[in-house]
Amino acid sequence: MTLINKLEPQDDFIGFYLIKELEIKQTNSTPPKDYFDMTIGDSTGEMNAKFWDISESDKNMYKAMQLVKIQGSVQVYRDKPQIKILKMRTINENENISLNDFIKSAPIPSNELMQTIQQTIDNICDLKIKEIVLYCVKKVEDKLLHYPAAKTNHHAFFAGLAYHIVRMLEIGDFICKQRPFLNADLVKAGIILHDIAKPVEMNAQMGIVSEYSNQGKLIGHIAIASSWVTEAAITCGTSLDCDQVIGLQHLILSHHNLGEWGSPVQPQMAEAVALHYIDMIDAKLQMVEDSLSASPQHEEWTSTVRGLEGKQIFRTNF
Amino acid sequence: MTLINKLEPQDDFIGFYLIKELEIKQTNSTPPKDYFDMTIGDSTGEMNAKFWDISESDKNMYKAMQLVKIQGSVQVYRDKPQIKILKMRTINENENISLNDFIKSAPIPSNELMQTIQQTIDNICDLKIKEIVLYCVKKVEDKLLHYPAAKTNHHAFFAGLAYHIVRMLEIGDFICKQRPFLNADLVKAGIILHDIAKPVEMNAQMGIVSEYSNQGKLIGHIAIASSWVTEAAITCGTSLDCDQVIGLQHLILSHHNLGEWGSPVQPQMAEAVALHYIDMIDAKLQMVEDSLSASPQHEEWTSTVRGLEGKQIFRTNF
Amino acid sequence: MTLINKLEPQDDFIGFYLIKELEIKQTNSTPPKDYFDMTIGDSTGEMNAKFWDISESDKNMYKAMQLVKIQGSVQVYRDKPQIKILKMRTINENENISLNDFIKSAPIPSNELMQTIQQTIDNICDLKIKEIVLYCVKKVEDKLLHYPAAKTNHHAFFAGLAYHIVRMLEIGDFICKQRPFLNADLVKAGIILHDIAKPVEMNAQMGIVSEYSNQGKLIGHIAIASSWVTEAAITCGTSLDCDQVIGLQHLILSHHNLGEWGSPVQPQMAEAVALHYIDMIDAKLQMVEDSLSASPQHEEWTSTVRGLEGKQIFRTNF
Amino acid sequence: MTLINKLEPQDDFIGFYLIKELEIKQTNSTPPKDYFDMTIGDSTGEMNAKFWDISESDKNMYKAMQLVKIQGSVQVYRDKPQIKILKMRTINENENISLNDFIKSAPIPSNELMQTIQQTIDNICDLKIKEIVLYCVKKVEDKLLHYPAAKTNHHAFFAGLAYHIVRMLEIGDFICKQRPFLNADLVKAGIILHDIAKPVEMNAQMGIVSEYSNQGKLIGHIAIASSWVTEAAITCGTSLDCDQVIGLQHLILSHHNLGEWGSPVQPQMAEAVALHYIDMIDAKLQMVEDSLSASPQHEEWTSTVRGLEGKQIFRTNF
Amino acid sequence: MTLINKLEPQDDFIGFYLIKELEIKQTNSTPPKDYFDMTIGDSTGEMNAKFWDISESDKNMYKAMQLVKIQGSVQVYRDKPQIKILKMRTINENENISLNDFIKSAPIPSNELMQTIQQTIDNICDLKIKEIVLYCVKKVEDKLLHYPAAKTNHHAFFAGLAYHIVRMLEIGDFICKQRPFLNADLVKAGIILHDIAKPVEMNAQMGIVSEYSNQGKLIGHIAIASSWVTEAAITCGTSLDCDQVIGLQHLILSHHNLGEWGSPVQPQMAEAVALHYIDMIDAKLQMVEDSLSASPQHEEWTSTVRGLEGKQIFRTNF
Amino acid sequence: MTLINKLEPQDDFIGFYLIKELEIKQTNSTPPKDYFDMTIGDSTGEMNAKFWDISESDKNMYKAMQLVKIQGSVQVYRDKPQIKILKMRTINENENISLNDFIKSAPIPSNELMQTIQQTIDNICDLKIKEIVLYCVKKVEDKLLHYPAAKTNHHAFFAGLAYHIVRMLEIGDFICKQRPFLNADLVKAGIILHDIAKPVEMNAQMGIVSEYSNQGKLIGHIAIASSWVTEAAITCGTSLDCDQVIGLQHLILSHHNLGEWGSPVQPQMAEAVALHYIDMIDAKLQMVEDSLSASPQHEEWTSTVRGLEGKQIFRTNF
Repeated sequence: MTLINKLEPQDDFIGFYLIKELEIKQTNSTPPKDYFDMTIGDSTGEMNAKFWDISESDKNMYKAMQLVKIQGSVQVYRDKPQIKILKMRTINENENISLNDFIKSAPIPSNELMQTIQQTIDNICDLKIKEIVLYCVKKVEDKLLHYPAAKTNHHAFFAGLAYHIVRMLEIGDFICKQRPFLNADLVKAGIILHDIAKPVEMNAQMGIVSEYSNQGKLIGHIAIASSWVTEAAITCGTSLDCDQVIGLQHLILSHHNLGEWGSPVQPQMAEAVALHYIDMIDAKLQMVEDSLSASPQHEEWTSTVRGLEGKQIFRTNF
Repeated sequence: MTLINKLEPQDDFIGFYLIKELEIKQTNSTPPKDYFDMTIGDSTGEMNAKFWDISESDKNMYKAMQLVKIQGSVQVYRDKPQIKILKMRTINENENISLNDFIKSAPIPSNELMQTIQQTIDNICDLKIKEIVLYCVKKVEDKLLHYPAAKTNHHAFFAGLAYHIVRMLEIGDFICKQRPFLNADLVKAGIILHDIAKPVEMNAQMGIVSEYSNQGKLIGHIAIASSWVTEAAITCGTSLDCDQVIGLQHLILSHHNLGEWGSPVQPQMAEAVALHYIDMIDAKLQMVEDSLSASPQHEEWTSTVRGLEGKQIFRTNF
Repeated sequence: MTLINKLEPQDDFIGFYLIKELEIKQTNSTPPKDYFDMTIGDSTGEMNAKFWDISESDKNMYKAMQLVKIQGSVQVYRDKPQIKILKMRTINENENISLNDFIKSAPIPSNELMQTIQQTIDNICDLKIKEIVLYCVKKVEDKLLHYPAAKTNHHAFFAGLAYHIVRMLEIGDFICKQRPFLNADLVKAGIILHDIAKPVEMNAQMGIVSEYSNQGKLIGHIAIASSWVTEAAITCGTSLDCDQVIGLQHLILSHHNLGEWGSPVQPQMAEAVALHYIDMIDAKLQMVEDSLSASPQHEEWTSTVRGLEGKQIFRTNF
Repeated sequence: MTLINKLEPQDDFIGFYLIKELEIKQTNSTPPKDYFDMTIGDSTGEMNAKFWDISESDKNMYKAMQLVKIQGSVQVYRDKPQIKILKMRTINENENISLNDFIKSAPIPSNELMQTIQQTIDNICDLKIKEIVLYCVKKVEDKLLHYPAAKTNHHAFFAGLAYHIVRMLEIGDFICKQRPFLNADLVKAGIILHDIAKPVEMNAQMGIVSEYSNQGKLIGHIAIASSWVTEAAITCGTSLDCDQVIGLQHLILSHHNLGEWGSPVQPQMAEAVALHYIDMIDAKLQMVEDSLSASPQHEEWTSTVRGLEGKQIFRTNF
Repeated sequence: MTLINKLEPQDDFIGFYLIKELEIKQTNSTPPKDYFDMTIGDSTGEMNAKFWDISESDKNMYKAMQLVKIQGSVQVYRDKPQIKILKMRTINENENISLNDFIKSAPIPSNELMQTIQQTIDNICDLKIKEIVLYCVKKVEDKLLHYPAAKTNHHAFFAGLAYHIVRMLEIGDFICKQRPFLNADLVKAGIILHDIAKPVEMNAQMGIVSEYSNQGKLIGHIAIASSWVTEAAITCGTSLDCDQVIGLQHLILSHHNLGEWGSPVQPQMAEAVALHYIDMIDAKLQMVEDSLSASPQHEEWTSTVRGLEGKQIFRTNF
Repeated sequence: MTLINKLEPQDDFIGFYLIKELEIKQTNSTPPKDYFDMTIGDSTGEMNAKFWDISESDKNMYKAMQLVKIQGSVQVYRDKPQIKILKMRTINENENISLNDFIKSAPIPSNELMQTIQQTIDNICDLKIKEIVLYCVKKVEDKLLHYPAAKTNHHAFFAGLAYHIVRMLEIGDFICKQRPFLNADLVKAGIILHDIAKPVEMNAQMGIVSEYSNQGKLIGHIAIASSWVTEAAITCGTSLDCDQVIGLQHLILSHHNLGEWGSPVQPQMAEAVALHYIDMIDAKLQMVEDSLSASPQHEEWTSTVRGLEGKQIFRTNF
């Protein structure tokens, strides 16, 4: 049983894996032959894999998000490791393999994350804010149990969004104690709501985003979430012109800080400035942590990280 | 009776004018004396004016948006003409002077503009779109009768916003005939709604914007208008997920084209691309027309126009 | 007989097509074998095609811009459809196939477009402007009958340049009526001349640009057209310093609006501002229309369009 | 006794103040007269002040950083409040006024801040790092007791630099607990060293920066601090090529994140990413807090803050 | 007799100066009084000057570009030295004062510069290039004797343009010897022609640019010079398509390197790359030299230089 | 014996070459076969080469930086020429082949370059500067004999760095004579030191950079060189605050001119401005010269050059 992040070029191996992507392609040979171009993974990582010379029954049997047992070897193609599959079969019920073991997950169980978020909402003093936050969270409650926070950038794993919120709440709590002039209700609400519409912006399964939705592309999670606050206020009978509604919408709309990063207005409330940087520090450090854990322990440098100006990260070891 | 745009340095003059701005300031002399620092104007333009050595009763008598009769002379201060007021008094009722004659207005009467907008709405075929547009226009109906389209950039005059909409509707109508693949309902609705929240973004009187509102700074007219579509859909019982609602929100959100110009999403529907460029061509040509008519006929170059990359415009005369 | 834009992966088909590009390449096999790497097309689109195991006589027989009959099947390679050619032969004279049926063309016949342009020139009142426009158009008259307006960006089809000019003239005519302060002669002349040197900037055949010319790369169509105005004025005996010559050169030089888009000066005449935005609205909407018609009717999203900030376009269907 | 931040236009007042800046200028009158153009302040803020009709003895008696008693009135000049001084005298010894009461200071006493920094250094485990940090802090120990962190941007007050370091250490401590993969020694050292050369970059007295030094302009605090690490390593006998020296220099050099913000390299270690965002969150929130406390309680909006994209901050009050 | 660059605040002085600019303005006093707002200068520099309480005969007697004798004193206004004129009179013929002594000039006499340029043209081997260069230089021969190279940026003095050309020719000569693959004819021609249309772009007298011309604003010196090459080729009977014409136009059009700096095409010939950097090194070092010589010897830092990223220059003195 | 830059598609050839890169890869065939993916080169250029069907002994025998005799043919793969190796063997001692003949080298022997640099140092008058320069050069003396100046951008050949320095010294010498106000010692020292830390930033062999070092990525050659000046000053007993040390550090730190190009401070000394442009003119012209000589004589255009805004260079031939 070999974990993905332990596979090295030239290795022969056998193991259980999740098919994360599967496409039928054809070789250039005459006549052309069909083969599977796949991404297989487990909780430790993922790798491209080729299954050559497939049969018609193979084509019917295998598809994405399926668990399989694979015998293969690791080759190098265009400087990247790639698996050549020699044998593949579906798993038996009595092999007792759970899908959950094969996907990358937040280090804290999903229901605990939800509890923390729920408790934070309970502790919001301002009732108008509390009602609106509750309404918005309700809209995506089910998805919050498993959605990632992004497609590839950061927290791209099972319950990544809820995990991102909870870690930000911890930092927010600390910063509010350090600087008591901040309105703690707004900071909490801003953290919970800032990415709350991501489950509508993206389609995801098992923590893996497959694509952006139409609404995601045409409106974006920032404007969707802002509209949810409008919807919540109407439902709760709160005036759309009251400071709480305007404040929450401002927090959501400005949290990307600059127009070129997607925010139609820039932070102009203390809590909006705080929200942006709390979001940044958590997202960026998660990217660093993920890229370090995804690269082999003995490598000094990770691969390049798009969200960190395309830089590689150096592993300090003293 | 001398019009503002006819005043030249060294002129002595008498006339009726509108006090557009008035501030009490103090000279550096010992002891300091109070004076009025004013902007006076008529339908042809405006100019800075100083009224030295004012009395206490002057301070009580005069304020902004008042009509007055002035005797003065034109001086030059820091390369700009400036009026030195020698005498000033308020107008008598029997002088038969109407405020409307002293402000810059759209060349078409306000109620005619509103009729055109109303008729365009009547001709929208898609009922969901029609209802939403109607709802949003109703919210600002009164203000649409007189609001300018911007603080200084373009259409900064009485009913400028309605005039901007009507001219854009004319262009939109032409483009939809030229390219029938465009959805004419969406183009019409997009034009009417794109700046519909400007009367909430800015505080204005008589076509003059005094300042941005809190909502204007914190949320901005783009996100406000998008939320109004949400509100309208809820009120009309239209699903927030239907294509019409998403389409209208996309048109509003993307009409500034780029993130750095305030749009959180970029145009991704044919009608959104059309809307942006129809907005641009009308706004930019209005800036040109306004700057040419605001500068003396005998001057080859206008003053610099901020909305046109800070360039001056050359007056062609052949 | 199957049209290119109807071909789907796995299809087997027979039909007549135009060879748009053809290159002889070699496989990695031992010993390597020659094959044709081709782009084949018809009036509806184009697709990559491979012809494996070619003979020496094949190499002599086939070349670009030739019409052929092909039997093949559609495969998928690197996520894109690709044709595998099984049989190919040249056409017989009695098959009555005309090259014109196989290239994408403007929806209006080339000679009608030229007539419209000619009539517009006839209607220019200012004689100096008329002479210069006439002189410049004469220089590329033959090419104007068939040249595209760009390599890939927009109007990249047979007579695309003339079509672009004619559609812009329609919009220009409308805008001049809407805003009578514009000089209609300058607007017309600017539209006809703004891209007039493109046939010298690019080498094209049948509406397909193969490459930029040396002059195109080293001088660019903007400076070439400006020099043509100089040449025209000298030939017509018009002073190089008169307002008409300066005005026309300004229109040409500034029509890309910004330095980073290739304009050495920015629009500083009302007609130059109008020209730029008329150009933009026509070019951008043509890109939208082309990308929608090039993608299958049942797909909600087109492929990405470079000229539209790299965005895909969403197909509205209500 | 009136505090600066309580002064409103038209107020007459008497009080003790610090002369922060003083320049002798001349009026435009004939003959010209000398006057003092001053900035006076106390612990709550500062304001421009004019003292007209000064004598020769006045010129000899008054200079910057002197405490004086002033009788004056508040006027408005170019939209800003300005003090007109009616009487001014130096203070008597028996008036028991201390300079310290007149300057803005960190809310924690300077020596406590230094103790916290010293304790943090004591707790660094890696001896090479500890020695280098100690050496660099020693170089500016005296100045660290009173230097501000910047000229105007943030923490521009007495002991502002030490205060900035201490608050960052608190956040760093929290983040290191939240993400144990971070090397706490590097985070602590990075926080202490990142701005350690600012006292050499700028000349300051009583928390007020008067100007940048030659070294500050020509080399900058980032490269100076990096050279100090070199110097420290040589003095301590630590190899310049060891990971600790390279790591510390990387932290210092990259802490502004981007080239255009002054960093010659970008963060490429987890601790460097953490350092940059800890610096940002503390600096930006301090700017917000300072601008809110510098503007009157009843004003909804602060003046614009250069370090926050030139935005004003809105005061929430629920 | 005191030179401008020796005047210090508080100085009383008498001397001869050139009136470079003169405007009649009015004080804010009641009644307002006329005064002269002037720029006076000599060969060492220039300074703002005020002449208060002028008479009607003063207004008739004095104008720009006149030589006068002044008695005055140096004051400080808004941190800048300013002259208060106590007495002023025009000069007598027998005072033997020559205008040339009062303007900043190239350090080499104008006619020697022209000779060098003429000799360089004589040494161009390629006859087509030689003829074109000759034709273009002829067009501005008179103005080349005295025109500056720019309004303020660099070489803003009498014969500055010719001096800039000659210094560049020296560098070009050196570089061509160092890298013999460069075509020396093209380098010479490019240097002489690159700014040759500046005398048409700007209106200047005695080395001082008063304003840009209409042609300068609407077409710009880059496109004007490129059109002159067209004109020259037509006159000389040289084909517009030959490599020499295209090459010279490319050199002129690309010499600002980037679109945002005004070049519609970027350097794509070896000689065009050389030309751009030879231009840069000469222009930038002249800015440095001018700003150092314009600031007092005892000051370590010059004032900010717009063409050097707005930086001040440090005077090294070892 | 065929030189690389003479090889054309379809050529069969035999010759001696240097293996510059060698990687073992595997084909997609079933079962996969190992092959060599190589870059082979000589003094005239380099090309990709494939050696199919290799044996185990081949894998042991061949590695990078080895000289071999090859029989092969030139094919085209993805529009680029590629060598198919038919036979390969290592060279015999008696074949008298020297590695030096197979690498691209500076046109002047390495030891002559070093002599020139040494003589220049000898002629520096200021003793403090001379000592520091000497110390820094000593640190990399061995590497300076063969290091390239960059990985790919410019002077990427054997002794390229020393060659770049020497050519810059020639230009610097000329410019100092043309503008005597420049401090020649600083110019010389700046040229020698500006890239002196590149041998530590990059790992190179035989003029070929394989990768950046950890120090290179984390600190960068600019900050490393600046620290060397610190080290040199400490060793030589020169004060770190003296003008010479600050001046040299400023020259090094600012020589990339802008923050986004890696300079933490911008040039603020005359010699720093000179250094930047001397560096630019030499680097850019070398890129041009290299790209022209690397492309076949009969091709009008070179391939694109990354350091020249991604442009191709046109070969003039008159």
